[in-house]
Amino acid sequence: MKKLFANRVLNNDTSDLDEIFKNSANPENISFAGGFPDQHLFPDNDLKQAYRDAIEHDGQGIFQYSSTQGLLALRQKIADRMLTHADVQVSADNVMMTQGGQQAIDLVAKLLLNHGDAMVVEGPTYMGALAAFDTYEPTYYEIPVDDNGMNIRQLRKTLKAHPEIKLIYTIPDFHNPTGTTMSAKRRQALVSLANQYDVIILEDSPYRDLRYSGQNIPAIKHYDTEGRVIFISSFSKILSPALRTGWIVADDTIMHELIGLKSAIDVQSPNVTLAAINSYLDSHDIDEHIATISASYQIKRDAMLTALDQYFPQNVHYTRPNGGFFIWVTLPEGVDAKDLLNDVVLPQAHVAYVPAACQFASRKVKNGFRLNFTNLDTATITEGIERLGHILQPAPMIVPATSFAPQF
Amino acid sequence: MKKLFANRVLNNDTSDLDEIFKNSANPENISFAGGFPDQHLFPDNDLKQAYRDAIEHDGQGIFQYSSTQGLLALRQKIADRMLTHADVQVSADNVMMTQGGQQAIDLVAKLLLNHGDAMVVEGPTYMGALAAFDTYEPTYYEIPVDDNGMNIRQLRKTLKAHPEIKLIYTIPDFHNPTGTTMSAKRRQALVSLANQYDVIILEDSPYRDLRYSGQNIPAIKHYDTEGRVIFISSFSKILSPALRTGWIVADDTIMHELIGLKSAIDVQSPNVTLAAINSYLDSHDIDEHIATISASYQIKRDAMLTALDQYFPQNVHYTRPNGGFFIWVTLPEGVDAKDLLNDVVLPQAHVAYVPAACQFASRKVKNGFRLNFTNLDTATITEGIERLGHILQPAPMIVPATSFAPQF
Repeated sequence: MKKLFANRVLNNDTSDLDEIFKNSANPENISFAGGFPDQHLFPDNDLKQAYRDAIEHDGQGIFQYSSTQGLLALRQKIADRMLTHADVQVSADNVMMTQGGQQAIDLVAKLLLNHGDAMVVEGPTYMGALAAFDTYEPTYYEIPVDDNGMNIRQLRKTLKAHPEIKLIYTIPDFHNPTGTTMSAKRRQALVSLANQYDVIILEDSPYRDLRYSGQNIPAIKHYDTEGRVIFISSFSKILSPALRTGWIVADDTIMHELIGLKSAIDVQSPNVTLAAINSYLDSHDIDEHIATISASYQIKRDAMLTALDQYFPQNVHYTRPNGGFFIWVTLPEGVDAKDLLNDVVLPQAHVAYVPAACQFASRKVKNGFRLNFTNLDTATITEGIERLGHILQPAPMIVPATSFAPQF
Repeated sequence: MKKLFANRVLNNDTSDLDEIFKNSANPENISFAGGFPDQHLFPDNDLKQAYRDAIEHDGQGIFQYSSTQGLLALRQKIADRMLTHADVQVSADNVMMTQGGQQAIDLVAKLLLNHGDAMVVEGPTYMGALAAFDTYEPTYYEIPVDDNGMNIRQLRKTLKAHPEIKLIYTIPDFHNPTGTTMSAKRRQALVSLANQYDVIILEDSPYRDLRYSGQNIPAIKHYDTEGRVIFISSFSKILSPALRTGWIVADDTIMHELIGLKSAIDVQSPNVTLAAINSYLDSHDIDEHIATISASYQIKRDAMLTALDQYFPQNVHYTRPNGGFFIWVTLPEGVDAKDLLNDVVLPQAHVAYVPAACQFASRKVKNGFRLNFTNLDTATITEGIERLGHILQPAPMIVPATSFAPQF
């Protein structure tokens, strides 16, 4: 049967990841592997009331087919938020609702990528985005990120050498998996380069509103002068991931095609969900909710950083994010974080993380891993980092600390 | 910007369809074009109660990420229904929830189709499926359907001549757009051919439970001996399309890959929706509901057939479906149903239908159109068919009636 499968499937091996998440689910282990928000922070009662309000106030029409683009009132609220929270001025016509941020990535990949088409990703990057892109079989160019985001000098060189590149995928705010944020200067430079080389930028920003320190920076889309930046985000991290509701912001030409593609993929998003989110936004101050969860996540981040400072050896580098969900750990060169996980960390320390390789399109960088700090309480975070620190402490950490930015 | 788009987008022109549905939405016109269920028949209050029950009884977990495959309790109910309603024996592990039947089609296309891969579709077929398949750029082979389903003799010849064919897409029950049903004998023959030529069958059966006359026939999947039939269906036509909930039934090897693909497309379906449908099925007899809507749709079908018998000229053929949503009209050869629609039917009779061409992969057959009978009351159905009959009556219907099965 397998010989009938498309190449995109045969090329796609998720067994590594499956195993990681299976180990994470084992309650004996402290798992820093997932990217889950803390479910104790969900506004459960408010969301439930929002569902009740939506189904009570909306008539029979709520159960009939509706528009592919999604509920206008909700799109208008998102357009308004884009201005106040990202310095991006758009109308509701330029917003489309999607099944989470994931479908937004899939849609943009489907819009742009023929088999073999060239695109840029950050190294490391969000592994779910790689899973989506992989199915369109692109040629990847990987640009390292540092504490100020994507390395623009390296990007310029790559674009010059490969004028066939069509798409740059970036997570500028509290990057997954490194937690770092792209500076305003680099955002402007990125848009200039995209204009110069005629490239689309996919700006994936699900963590944008979850800032715990430092100053807000306008979205990359804010600097867009030619309608070539597609902005995507989601309610998954600020409200609830089970809503499966995200959005795309794009200019008219691109939006027109994305609507057609979504229609062919799943016709439309579920009306009741969209109406419930719209109800929630009508009745509650989501920014107040975001402030509450941010305060809690800040405490968790600080607990993890404190534990890292205390228990991790000098030759292990880690990022100090201003927001989001993740801290990135760079091990000395030559250490394979996946082998370390399977051979030592899981069996001896009973701790899980996501090793570097599956977060690089090249799969070549091995000496790093991603830690999530949002989904555990502070005592467990401290305990897990202490256990991990003990493993990392003695050996084989004899190589001097390297810069965080991976080389390839 | 457009030059950056993938070929699948550049090849895809939906402007015809956009125009048809724009005209349908005009309240001055009687529209037989859409494929909408009658929203007055939705079990609104029961569905609303099901949402309330789901959010009341399920804890915080309902708002956290969950499994890609979907709620086990609901999958188990669907597995049970597959046995009682389709003579197919499967476990819950072989069921995955999708965003409507449309996503199920997209997933199977993604599983199997490399650019240029060969597949079989019926002529005519569901235009939404063509939209989904088109984005994977297959090579289509079109097999005509008659009152007993796909022409198996023609299929055999095609498979023999094109051993590279990987996939057969069929709508065996109350076919969209013709309303006809594949005989049991042809179902068996279809599976034999698929075994012989190593082909996957995609059995799309959203109308299966909506039978108004005649005897039930086992699903094609019932005859599957080698795990090569993928069955898909949906709650859209029997409960509500806005739930955006369908399902795939497939054997282990195929299911494993489909789960991976769905995870990369949108992670999972929304928990609250799945829990609400599960609640509905716990508290209500969906078969009783299906019996109620079937009784109403039967009256609508009969009204349309009576009007067709009364008002349509002898040289126009139409199908007499035992269930589903649609009747297919075959005009004399040489008549272009799209020109007729735009030049005469819409401006003079103010009636809309879906002309043949966009329902054929080849786009070559023009002398037919699809009529929907579920979404209007009987008086409006009769009025619309009478108006249409007056247009068709005098001219240019001078060619003798042809067989329904389109030639190509």
